[in-house]
Amino acid sequence: MTDVYKQALTYHKQKTGKLGTVNIIGKLESKKDLSLAYTPGVAEPCRVISQDDSLAYDYTLKGRTIAVISNGSAVLGLGNIGPKAALPVMEGKSLLIKQFGGVDSFPLVIDAQTPSEIINFVKQVAPTFAGINLEDISAPTCFQVEEALQDIGIPVFHDDQHGTAIVVRAALINAAKVINKPYESLKVAIVGAGSAGLAIARMILGLNCNSDRCSKANGARHVNDVIVFDTKGAIFAGRNNQNIYKQAVAGLSNKNKKAGTPEETIDGFDVIIGVSGPGSITPEAIKKMSKKAIVFALANPTPEIMPEEAKKAGAYIIATGRSDFNNQINNVLAFPGIFKAVVQGKLKKITYQMKQTASDTIAETIENPTVDKIIPSVFYPNLAEKVSQAVLKAK
Amino acid sequence: MTDVYKQALTYHKQKTGKLGTVNIIGKLESKKDLSLAYTPGVAEPCRVISQDDSLAYDYTLKGRTIAVISNGSAVLGLGNIGPKAALPVMEGKSLLIKQFGGVDSFPLVIDAQTPSEIINFVKQVAPTFAGINLEDISAPTCFQVEEALQDIGIPVFHDDQHGTAIVVRAALINAAKVINKPYESLKVAIVGAGSAGLAIARMILGLNCNSDRCSKANGARHVNDVIVFDTKGAIFAGRNNQNIYKQAVAGLSNKNKKAGTPEETIDGFDVIIGVSGPGSITPEAIKKMSKKAIVFALANPTPEIMPEEAKKAGAYIIATGRSDFNNQINNVLAFPGIFKAVVQGKLKKITYQMKQTASDTIAETIENPTVDKIIPSVFYPNLAEKVSQAVLKAK
Repeated sequence: MTDVYKQALTYHKQKTGKLGTVNIIGKLESKKDLSLAYTPGVAEPCRVISQDDSLAYDYTLKGRTIAVISNGSAVLGLGNIGPKAALPVMEGKSLLIKQFGGVDSFPLVIDAQTPSEIINFVKQVAPTFAGINLEDISAPTCFQVEEALQDIGIPVFHDDQHGTAIVVRAALINAAKVINKPYESLKVAIVGAGSAGLAIARMILGLNCNSDRCSKANGARHVNDVIVFDTKGAIFAGRNNQNIYKQAVAGLSNKNKKAGTPEETIDGFDVIIGVSGPGSITPEAIKKMSKKAIVFALANPTPEIMPEEAKKAGAYIIATGRSDFNNQINNVLAFPGIFKAVVQGKLKKITYQMKQTASDTIAETIENPTVDKIIPSVFYPNLAEKVSQAVLKAK
Repeated sequence: MTDVYKQALTYHKQKTGKLGTVNIIGKLESKKDLSLAYTPGVAEPCRVISQDDSLAYDYTLKGRTIAVISNGSAVLGLGNIGPKAALPVMEGKSLLIKQFGGVDSFPLVIDAQTPSEIINFVKQVAPTFAGINLEDISAPTCFQVEEALQDIGIPVFHDDQHGTAIVVRAALINAAKVINKPYESLKVAIVGAGSAGLAIARMILGLNCNSDRCSKANGARHVNDVIVFDTKGAIFAGRNNQNIYKQAVAGLSNKNKKAGTPEETIDGFDVIIGVSGPGSITPEAIKKMSKKAIVFALANPTPEIMPEEAKKAGAYIIATGRSDFNNQINNVLAFPGIFKAVVQGKLKKITYQMKQTASDTIAETIENPTVDKIIPSVFYPNLAEKVSQAVLKAK
């Protein structure tokens, strides 16, 4: 066991987890206090909300709280470990939403496997919250779930998809500046066609997708040339053995219907993005790419290819998901600001335009991107507030 | 609108509700902090919990957090106002659990009407919590729900039933002392056969009920003579038009199978307990009772009969649910201590014996009960700790 893992056990045990609940209204010290916070006074906010339920945003924690919901079916590198074992991650996510976004958040790990079980649960609990972050739910379940929850009156945001896509796009915009090519002209390979891979493809292709129905989003600034790979090779329109979500993206990418592995197909490509697992980006693939190759190896904790090896193979700009290398692509750059906007704007949905402007805002924090600095630190000051303001302008 | 209601609106709006979430582990200020609270370190508690899920109690908020769950179908005097309108009450309940019990708590208001919807929801969310408080769910749904949730591995406590019954029993024990009669000899009328009424009957009759199947609990100290009334009069074995839960209690009470209203049937009774609504205890009924009549008029905010009127009719000891009269019977005397025990003892169930000892502990705080003091103040110091210790001894 390496040091960080050993320390993490002690860290999680010292206070029994990381997130607590707290009285924010002042201690109840008198019968008067009790009569306001509870009976009989509490009946009055109940009454006014029963007449106009939008007032729940003003009188209750609904107005400022985000649920982090997971069934623990696709946790980090750990796979389907179930709800209880996923709780440390979800509690951590709520902590990040609170610290970086200033938004209250509570984790709910649930015993639910089928899409309909997850969908029903989220619909049932939605009255409590201003928004919902779905986390670590495996693909393609996550797409089906998200589609079914588009119109429940509060935003349902699957961070593994959208948070990742927003931050990857920001890093890509700055990487394009560093190699002095227009963002739109980049040729991009995405290795991995799960939730993150398809979401990145949709985002950089400028697609507004409702599950498997994709169309170009209004005002999207997008790249034109993308190939997505799964374990069977490049996906393309009409390929066998691909689910409806891959089919939809395939129909709007890989125009020449190339088949095969990255090594076989990405001659002269500018960018390879790994959202798969260790070993899925090879030095051979990088050697085939254009001169100033951009490699994002995002698997955690072990990247698709280690930065040193990627560099040796010719990579010019390298980013990973890890904090111990340069250019950490971390969702925490996006989701706290997104949820801040959800709460501040009482948003009902998060649109493509909102995600694009969030991504632009993150990119713009780096005035002069360099090989080693295409993305801000997770501790960049007031980033969530900047992202939130941008998102609210796109409302 | 009276003053307290007006003030309660301002009170609830100033901070947007009352309960927040908070980082209890220390601010995340460095990459190191992030690597412990989130990736990669967080994977280690996940891993150990996936091998032994009881460790979720040690490494996550599950070990110290109670959910307050309601569908808003039977809120205070407001009826079926739905989940969003019920949230101020549930948020208040979580606040009381936190302040009086020192136990973290989070409210979940849910869009669920049928028993099976509520049952499924609670089962799904159970992995997150150490225990669950069901609140303001109408009878008989609440009985059905509770029965189905007996064996989900964490305690499910319906406070409207059990909290009320525990505190009423404590007050009754001390009231018996004041009128100098053995508790066991009291003749008790209960007006109202909803969740609270039937739960009080079960508690003081010493019944261990699994929904509609009741039997005498081991070691229960109980009264022998109880009649429960619903809107159709006294319930008795074999009466028509009573649900299975009333039938079960009828079979073990009202031995002489009296029919009729309280006025017609409670000649010489010592105690009348109202858990119904204004007007359901009449001066005429009290006049028929024994000389030192005990009247608990617990409807909120308007009691079944006002204390002054009850006194005029001959009541000797009067208790209500209100803080502006003597002898306030308030569940907050019981549930914070119960949930403290749930968390401290990692309880799986709350037994009759635990409820009885909680009730005894509350009664014993008053060394010399008087007409005006049969029950402690809600601010009685360290009561939750005392109750918790007693409950844990009954484990």
